[in-house]
Amino acid sequence: MSLQFNNYLCKISISVFYYLVNSDFDILKILVRWRTGAKKTMEIFKTVSAMQSWSKQLKKQDKTICLVPTMGYLHKGHISLMEKGKELYDKVVLSIFVNPTQFGENEDLDSYPVDLDKDLYYAKKIGIDAVFLPSKDEIYNNNYQTYVELTKLPKHLCGLFRPVHFKGVTTVVTKLFNIVDPDAAIFGQKDYQQLQVIRQMTKDMNFNIKIIGAPIVREDDGLAMSSRNAYLTPEQRKSSLCLSRSLEKVRKMVKQGEIDADVILHKINEFIKSFEGTKIDYSALCDPETLNNVKEVTSKTLFALAVIIGKTRLIDNTIVEPITNPAQ
Amino acid sequence: MSLQFNNYLCKISISVFYYLVNSDFDILKILVRWRTGAKKTMEIFKTVSAMQSWSKQLKKQDKTICLVPTMGYLHKGHISLMEKGKELYDKVVLSIFVNPTQFGENEDLDSYPVDLDKDLYYAKKIGIDAVFLPSKDEIYNNNYQTYVELTKLPKHLCGLFRPVHFKGVTTVVTKLFNIVDPDAAIFGQKDYQQLQVIRQMTKDMNFNIKIIGAPIVREDDGLAMSSRNAYLTPEQRKSSLCLSRSLEKVRKMVKQGEIDADVILHKINEFIKSFEGTKIDYSALCDPETLNNVKEVTSKTLFALAVIIGKTRLIDNTIVEPITNPAQ
Repeated sequence: MSLQFNNYLCKISISVFYYLVNSDFDILKILVRWRTGAKKTMEIFKTVSAMQSWSKQLKKQDKTICLVPTMGYLHKGHISLMEKGKELYDKVVLSIFVNPTQFGENEDLDSYPVDLDKDLYYAKKIGIDAVFLPSKDEIYNNNYQTYVELTKLPKHLCGLFRPVHFKGVTTVVTKLFNIVDPDAAIFGQKDYQQLQVIRQMTKDMNFNIKIIGAPIVREDDGLAMSSRNAYLTPEQRKSSLCLSRSLEKVRKMVKQGEIDADVILHKINEFIKSFEGTKIDYSALCDPETLNNVKEVTSKTLFALAVIIGKTRLIDNTIVEPITNPAQ
Repeated sequence: MSLQFNNYLCKISISVFYYLVNSDFDILKILVRWRTGAKKTMEIFKTVSAMQSWSKQLKKQDKTICLVPTMGYLHKGHISLMEKGKELYDKVVLSIFVNPTQFGENEDLDSYPVDLDKDLYYAKKIGIDAVFLPSKDEIYNNNYQTYVELTKLPKHLCGLFRPVHFKGVTTVVTKLFNIVDPDAAIFGQKDYQQLQVIRQMTKDMNFNIKIIGAPIVREDDGLAMSSRNAYLTPEQRKSSLCLSRSLEKVRKMVKQGEIDADVILHKINEFIKSFEGTKIDYSALCDPETLNNVKEVTSKTLFALAVIIGKTRLIDNTIVEPITNPAQ
């Protein structure tokens, strides 16, 4: 009964906020200010031109700008990114945009969780200077036809299971970089491959922007924070621990001197299968720069995995380092 | 004998300048200043970082910057672009880079004409503020892997015969935009499809850059200026007039009330074939925005053609407009 009431409240809240967002930003600003008790106004921009003008003005004043690109439904992971931005740069822009081009046909675009009310509340509390909150039409108009694509890095890990994903990511991030014109952008290390793809894209495209990777933030029991965790039933939530536990297991094996990738991954796959309702997309040991699979863990190595639990696809990763051979 | 001597001089000149360019820019600057008698130094940047720093500094001073991207071997067409830039913006940057990614495997990358001495002389005479003159390695390093591609506009006209061309153009122009950070960029209308592709790319990628198209500059007999005209033998030079003459013929036919695209193009193709040693890649009547072929010339229409003469591929185009029907 209480849960139903909560759901009902949540739906009303979303509806009211969507109405406000689409009708009158002054009301939105006033509400956010009232909720957070803050005095400084947080800018909210829906259009590319308004966002660009704001950045251009600040650049002339020699202010540094940091961008935190998100798809909203903010959690503690996002909050750590925003706080890092506040710490290092004069102004922080939070972008909230559920980017359709990075979702495959059978993926969760339509069900991706939304809570704009809470997102804006968090942003304001943290002291975000501007939120970029465009509509889909503002980002991709009718005749849209330009895509940014990498030829190598996406051909590994998640890219093998989500063939259009990184093309969508690099396209929208290029656009966000041109719209916000930041000095730096912060991305979470949970999406390790995404971070590498964006680093490479930024270098290749000569964006004069520093890419900062921020550590994975976890629940108390180890599950990496993700907006998609909201999909999990209580049963699935238990199974979801197979990911972080796998990281621990790999670390332990490597610490004990195991270097054979096949041996490690076989044990890990068996371990994951022992959890109820899990389906492995991949578990891999690879070079942290090129993402090529390695046969042996002889230097710093990325362990990354993607597991589908019910309908929810979760990812996690860690860098492992082999023990120094005492015989050497 | 005189021609041989000229060739010899030309080769020495290229060698000396390549040596200077790759060794010491101060000498290069002094030489250019001496040759042109100008007092103001024209900056010459070989590295991305030096070019970016210069632009960043000027932006802080609220100066506007215009980019004229070229592959060098400058002619009067390029000069008109640079002069337009000087007229409209505080600072003009000329980039000279023979971009390998826009050449197909059997195209003329290796034989593309070079005359850096003359290029820098022209640039200085016109009052260009900075020349961006990167090496291939500076633009595309070992692990380079990012490309910008359009899905629709390149599937017409030249794009059908040069399948990798526009991908290379949009990639390098994106990079140049990020390196120079201009307020505007000027391109010649001779490469009509390129201009449309770049307009669309700029809009799609949210570059806050004005794209300016400048009119085709022609030799006295009508041949559109092109660096590739240098390839033509005296005989081929005569045949090259088939392009500009075709534009005149199409204009005349449309003026006389002919609207049937098939009829017009059939006559034009026969006309081109009447010139010695010509091979038609395409001649087309199409929508000036989408580049889709039209069946009838009932509104503003692009006539564009590409003809191979010997081994030299030449292009030209014009916009035609039907006469108003006097019966209406």
